[in-house]
Amino acid sequence: MEALELADFERAARDRLPAEIWDFVQGGSGAERTLAANRARFEECRLRPRTLVDVSATDQGLTLLGSRLETPVGIAPMAYHQLFHPEGEVATARAAGRAGALLVAGIFASRTLESIAEAATGPLWLQLYWLRRREVLAALIERAEAAGFRALVLTVDAPRIGRRLRDARNGFAIPAHVRAVNVDRAVMAASHRAGRGSSGLADHAKEQFDPTLTWADLAWLRARTRLPIVLKGILTAEDARLAVEHGVDAVLVSNHGGRQLDGALPSLAALPEVAAAVPPNLPVLLDGGVRTGTDVALAVALGARAVLIGRPVLWGLAVDGERGAARVLDLLKAELDDTLALLGRPRLGDLDPTAVAPGTHR
Amino acid sequence: MEALELADFERAARDRLPAEIWDFVQGGSGAERTLAANRARFEECRLRPRTLVDVSATDQGLTLLGSRLETPVGIAPMAYHQLFHPEGEVATARAAGRAGALLVAGIFASRTLESIAEAATGPLWLQLYWLRRREVLAALIERAEAAGFRALVLTVDAPRIGRRLRDARNGFAIPAHVRAVNVDRAVMAASHRAGRGSSGLADHAKEQFDPTLTWADLAWLRARTRLPIVLKGILTAEDARLAVEHGVDAVLVSNHGGRQLDGALPSLAALPEVAAAVPPNLPVLLDGGVRTGTDVALAVALGARAVLIGRPVLWGLAVDGERGAARVLDLLKAELDDTLALLGRPRLGDLDPTAVAPGTHR
Amino acid sequence: MEALELADFERAARDRLPAEIWDFVQGGSGAERTLAANRARFEECRLRPRTLVDVSATDQGLTLLGSRLETPVGIAPMAYHQLFHPEGEVATARAAGRAGALLVAGIFASRTLESIAEAATGPLWLQLYWLRRREVLAALIERAEAAGFRALVLTVDAPRIGRRLRDARNGFAIPAHVRAVNVDRAVMAASHRAGRGSSGLADHAKEQFDPTLTWADLAWLRARTRLPIVLKGILTAEDARLAVEHGVDAVLVSNHGGRQLDGALPSLAALPEVAAAVPPNLPVLLDGGVRTGTDVALAVALGARAVLIGRPVLWGLAVDGERGAARVLDLLKAELDDTLALLGRPRLGDLDPTAVAPGTHR
Amino acid sequence: MEALELADFERAARDRLPAEIWDFVQGGSGAERTLAANRARFEECRLRPRTLVDVSATDQGLTLLGSRLETPVGIAPMAYHQLFHPEGEVATARAAGRAGALLVAGIFASRTLESIAEAATGPLWLQLYWLRRREVLAALIERAEAAGFRALVLTVDAPRIGRRLRDARNGFAIPAHVRAVNVDRAVMAASHRAGRGSSGLADHAKEQFDPTLTWADLAWLRARTRLPIVLKGILTAEDARLAVEHGVDAVLVSNHGGRQLDGALPSLAALPEVAAAVPPNLPVLLDGGVRTGTDVALAVALGARAVLIGRPVLWGLAVDGERGAARVLDLLKAELDDTLALLGRPRLGDLDPTAVAPGTHR
Ligand SMILES: Cc1cc2nc3c(=O)[nH]c(=O)nc-3n(C[C@H](O)[C@H](O)[C@H](O)COP(=O)(O)O)c2cc1C
Ligand SMILES: Cc1cc2nc3c(=O)[nH]c(=O)nc-3n(C[C@H](O)[C@H](O)[C@H](O)COP(=O)(O)O)c2cc1C
Ligand SMILES: Cc1cc2nc3c(=O)[nH]c(=O)nc-3n(C[C@H](O)[C@H](O)[C@H](O)COP(=O)(O)O)c2cc1C
Ligand SMILES: Cc1cc2nc3c(=O)[nH]c(=O)nc-3n(C[C@H](O)[C@H](O)[C@H](O)COP(=O)(O)O)c2cc1C
Repeated sequence: MEALELADFERAARDRLPAEIWDFVQGGSGAERTLAANRARFEECRLRPRTLVDVSATDQGLTLLGSRLETPVGIAPMAYHQLFHPEGEVATARAAGRAGALLVAGIFASRTLESIAEAATGPLWLQLYWLRRREVLAALIERAEAAGFRALVLTVDAPRIGRRLRDARNGFAIPAHVRAVNVDRAVMAASHRAGRGSSGLADHAKEQFDPTLTWADLAWLRARTRLPIVLKGILTAEDARLAVEHGVDAVLVSNHGGRQLDGALPSLAALPEVAAAVPPNLPVLLDGGVRTGTDVALAVALGARAVLIGRPVLWGLAVDGERGAARVLDLLKAELDDTLALLGRPRLGDLDPTAVAPGTHR
Repeated sequence: MEALELADFERAARDRLPAEIWDFVQGGSGAERTLAANRARFEECRLRPRTLVDVSATDQGLTLLGSRLETPVGIAPMAYHQLFHPEGEVATARAAGRAGALLVAGIFASRTLESIAEAATGPLWLQLYWLRRREVLAALIERAEAAGFRALVLTVDAPRIGRRLRDARNGFAIPAHVRAVNVDRAVMAASHRAGRGSSGLADHAKEQFDPTLTWADLAWLRARTRLPIVLKGILTAEDARLAVEHGVDAVLVSNHGGRQLDGALPSLAALPEVAAAVPPNLPVLLDGGVRTGTDVALAVALGARAVLIGRPVLWGLAVDGERGAARVLDLLKAELDDTLALLGRPRLGDLDPTAVAPGTHR
Repeated sequence: MEALELADFERAARDRLPAEIWDFVQGGSGAERTLAANRARFEECRLRPRTLVDVSATDQGLTLLGSRLETPVGIAPMAYHQLFHPEGEVATARAAGRAGALLVAGIFASRTLESIAEAATGPLWLQLYWLRRREVLAALIERAEAAGFRALVLTVDAPRIGRRLRDARNGFAIPAHVRAVNVDRAVMAASHRAGRGSSGLADHAKEQFDPTLTWADLAWLRARTRLPIVLKGILTAEDARLAVEHGVDAVLVSNHGGRQLDGALPSLAALPEVAAAVPPNLPVLLDGGVRTGTDVALAVALGARAVLIGRPVLWGLAVDGERGAARVLDLLKAELDDTLALLGRPRLGDLDPTAVAPGTHR
Repeated sequence: MEALELADFERAARDRLPAEIWDFVQGGSGAERTLAANRARFEECRLRPRTLVDVSATDQGLTLLGSRLETPVGIAPMAYHQLFHPEGEVATARAAGRAGALLVAGIFASRTLESIAEAATGPLWLQLYWLRRREVLAALIERAEAAGFRALVLTVDAPRIGRRLRDARNGFAIPAHVRAVNVDRAVMAASHRAGRGSSGLADHAKEQFDPTLTWADLAWLRARTRLPIVLKGILTAEDARLAVEHGVDAVLVSNHGGRQLDGALPSLAALPEVAAAVPPNLPVLLDGGVRTGTDVALAVALGARAVLIGRPVLWGLAVDGERGAARVLDLLKAELDDTLALLGRPRLGDLDPTAVAPGTHR
């Protein structure tokens, strides 16, 4: 197979993955309304191409929180890459490095932060959930800093886990040979067994996630690190403003790929109000449903500095390990390059809301 | 089967119920436009989640017309629960009690008001149709008060019965062994036989329902009881204002689950104008198409104090009696609990129209 | 079969009619965009029911151009009813009479005006196309007046015939045993043979219809009759105003059931602007896609004094002759009666735009 | 087969053409969003027909850049007509001539400009891509002028070629026996072989198209010819204004039939803003998705002086050579003629935005 678009990897991964792993990666919460809406929103938007612009030198490079990136497409934090390939996050890190793309490693990565950092040749961030066991976080932050991670991403849309029915029906639990190796074994135990009508992930989150997290707690995090702090899961202007007031360094507009609050608005729909609510120099990122270069351009035009992709990277990993993940990033880069050229907006900075047909985005 | 969403009960009930009973519960009137619109309206709305709010203590409890409820999800009045399970409304009452949910018993309940009241551990209301035989109503009211029912719900969208084609095609009549035991046998006789191209219910309603009912008649009801009076079937601001002027205690925004006027607007679409037309302290309820915790949150955010569910309770009853009905309520409670937490609005009182993305509801 | 909605007759007629006759009645012009839009427009509109109104006495009667009608649902002019039943328009006239409904006979009726008039017990109008042979019209007008027809309907959306591809593919021509008996044989000859890739109707219209007809020509008609004149096929406020200026007695908002200009707006969408453009006492009628009592109520609420139905009457005729056509009218009457009652607007005069949810009609 | 609408040719061509040729003509770029949107936009618009207008003499003739045309429907520039019929552009030119329609020959025509000009009896324009080898363009311009071509069309939406996945999957390359005979063999070599996961066209464009083209370069073209210059691929008011400032003679609103920027807005949606941005006497043309006379009328009403059609001509050519292409044009002419008559706007000049129902076009 020569994959020519991300959908090719999707089809190939479905053929290859065990059903319960496929469901785990592909599924959303509840009736999967938000999952579907994420895609639909992109598909409704229309671009307004300009012509007779010299596009011989397109440039999708950018600087994000001090790091140089070759592309505004990064990898969203996702747990347990070893479910998809034995090399897990090490393969993903190499793929990101090859593409000059950001990798946000998940707190439940299945490879050590240190081995990921060693494999990485590009910028690395670490995503954190707010665990009840605060000392686990403190230790992770210390290790991440030492290993050269460059930012911390605090996921704020998961005070508990969404109702992921596919996982619950499958009684899905993380198999014993794949582990969140960066976190204390005791903290993770619950994720490896599933109750009736539940999943290991749901049970684990209930046990370990701390739902009391508020804006005030950000001070604890700030006190423990000199790394920039990114909030993942902001979907309203109100929260964007609060983020700014609390000294956050960037916000990531996200509904967790439709895996948390079912019914939440699609991330692209939330983007304009968030972008308008923060100072122009504060980076706004977006994830959820990005599948083509057109989507990337739409998000950047409507206010995102960069986007992250989730599932497609795991499809690539499942199909062909590091090479597959790298190809996924390369395809998006190539598509974005074509989009910038054909839009007559060869640099990322040329993208603004006038590139989007009014009335096609709300 | 481990049911994880209400749709699981729907599938299971379809497999289990005789076709004509399935059609009776599932169907709507006419071309079922309103039936479909009820669902579509919920599915189009999008929620705006807030983050970094302490959601360790969610609370979906409320006080409604003086009664404490554990959840804003109650059971809509529906005739003949024994069509679905031999224990009928007694099972439903026990299920409601276990969930701390309101039960609105129907005037055509197949178990006596007294046995329902005995089984109930939570608040009970009684729904009435305006029968030509006014003395039947007077007697029912007296019994309901004596048995401890706490409010009367007068259904005002049924001066006659809608054209329910499924029932008419099936020549559906209430089987002899299931009876509206609280009403005089003579009054109910017509519902047990069906004319050609008609149904027992349609013929019965034509014979027994009094279509002359007007606002002025509410005085008769008011004179006969000290119980709060709720009007079921209000869909316009005009009628909501009249209800207030006539001293009604609450209104229930409803199109009878798409079983009366086909083409009527979906109840969720009517909710904002009704809510805006009544004083803030007057409870507005809603039913019609509520199937998930997302739906409950949407309705409450747009002005409902609580919602009622109809068909899903009967699915639960058909599948597993009291346990099934209780599980239906528990699922909705659990979903709502998750929704409140993930919305960052842990208490019902935190829900307001800012929780709904503008432009996604009309 | 006990038909319970018009769609039952549609299914039964499809089973019964030869394919080319089915295509003739069912088809529209071009890509049938307007045909589909006529229905879609009705299905998108939503009604706002009022409650606690005495609906014991519903009344759908009205007076139209001086004639008393039992229902605002009449029969649109259609050619060649004998294609559907040997009794043809005589059966239709009897059916209309039984229902107290208006019958608009078509200029290409397959029974004589006199026999139709004899069979009719209710009001009769005659529809005319503007033929090149003006003396044929003059003669028809004289006969119609003598036979007791009460109005003339001039179809103004057919200076030529629309591209009806189904008929052209079928090489459809009117079979020899069915004839437009009220018109000179020579004038009709072309309709009985079809050219390659054409139909008898198309060829005939090209030969006989006069495309030079303008507003000024209405004087010729007015000079020849004392009957009221109705223009059929008005879809804009501009033309409605011109109709008034030219002394027309009523206008019929119609796109010829999607059989003429493909792409024309649906008749229900045109209705409000036409209704707003004429004096309140000038009757506005509508046809195109009316299939349920809900549709009738919507049209009347948005400004129609009455509606006409086309295809459904021919379905009824094909299935069961006079009885079938009568049943079609009776079903609509019964549905409208239920709609008026459940809308809380028991008389036609109670219907106004407040009965329709804003934003559901354009 | 008697083709009665363009869709008949589409079906017949699909049956007849090798799969990779079918994909080449039919496909779009990326996820083919824009390809689909082009059609959807036309199908949503509704016409407002006027009545009682003398339509005995319809007239779709016009003068465009000094040439008389019998119809506002011309043939869009498309490469390699010999892929569809051995006579290639010579057959197309004869077909255009028979219909009195404009033919825009493509720079990659498979027949010589001179033989096309000889076959043509109507106006001919030549389309150019901005090649790196500028002398090739200069030579072509000279030959075109000598052969009697009357305008030059510079395609500005193709600084590079869109991602046409169907061609890439097929590894499509132009077969050796079909050649862009008007261009140096060396310049075209790459189009005859395909790389892995690519197509000959994509590789060729990368090699030969000059992406540095800007507004300033138009001076080079202007200096080399006295022919009118048309820009093909304008989709915004901004570019339309720039075109006027740079002395362009006409603009063609186009997204290249959905083959370049996927996600670009549909051409009909762009038309009103482009039409409003240029002086009334500057011709605005449109292509993309025109398939019926209704579509032609919509485009002209919303500001186009004429439209071009692409794929349908190649369907006609594939099915029946010159006769097929001519029949495609004749069908559209006949449909437009009927549309003008039934719209009550018998001349092109009668079409204006009041012919389109507001709210059905954005
Ligand atoms: C299998 C999987 C695991 C995920 N794990 C995490 C996680 O551990 N932490 C987190 O913040 N988000 C997690 N996410 C959400 C992603 O970071 C991201 O928000 C989402 O996948 C983006 O949507 P997309 O998959 O449509 O591109 C996960 C998503 C998937 C699909
Ligand atoms: C089988 C059935 C019987 C019903 N019986 C009554 C009734 O006796 N009185 C009444 O007011 N509403 C009755 N309803 C309407 C419900 O109270 C409620 O309005 C509706 O079911 C809510 O919509 P839902 O089923 O989509 O949740 C009935 C509904 C169903 C499905
Ligand atoms: C079979 C058939 C024949 C028709 N013949 C005529 C006719 O002779 N004159 C006319 O003005 N309209 C004619 N019409 C149009 C109808 O009067 C009417 O406008 C249309 O059928 C209404 O739409 P509906 O069929 O969706 O109810 C005909 C329609 C059909 C279906
Ligand atoms: C097979 C094919 C080849 C084409 N070749 C060219 C070309 O060489 N130059 C160009 O400007 N446009 C080219 N186009 C685009 C057409 O000029 C036109 O913009 C488009 O086909 C119009 O859309 P339609 O096919 O939906 O009518 C081509 C289109 C097709 C389908």
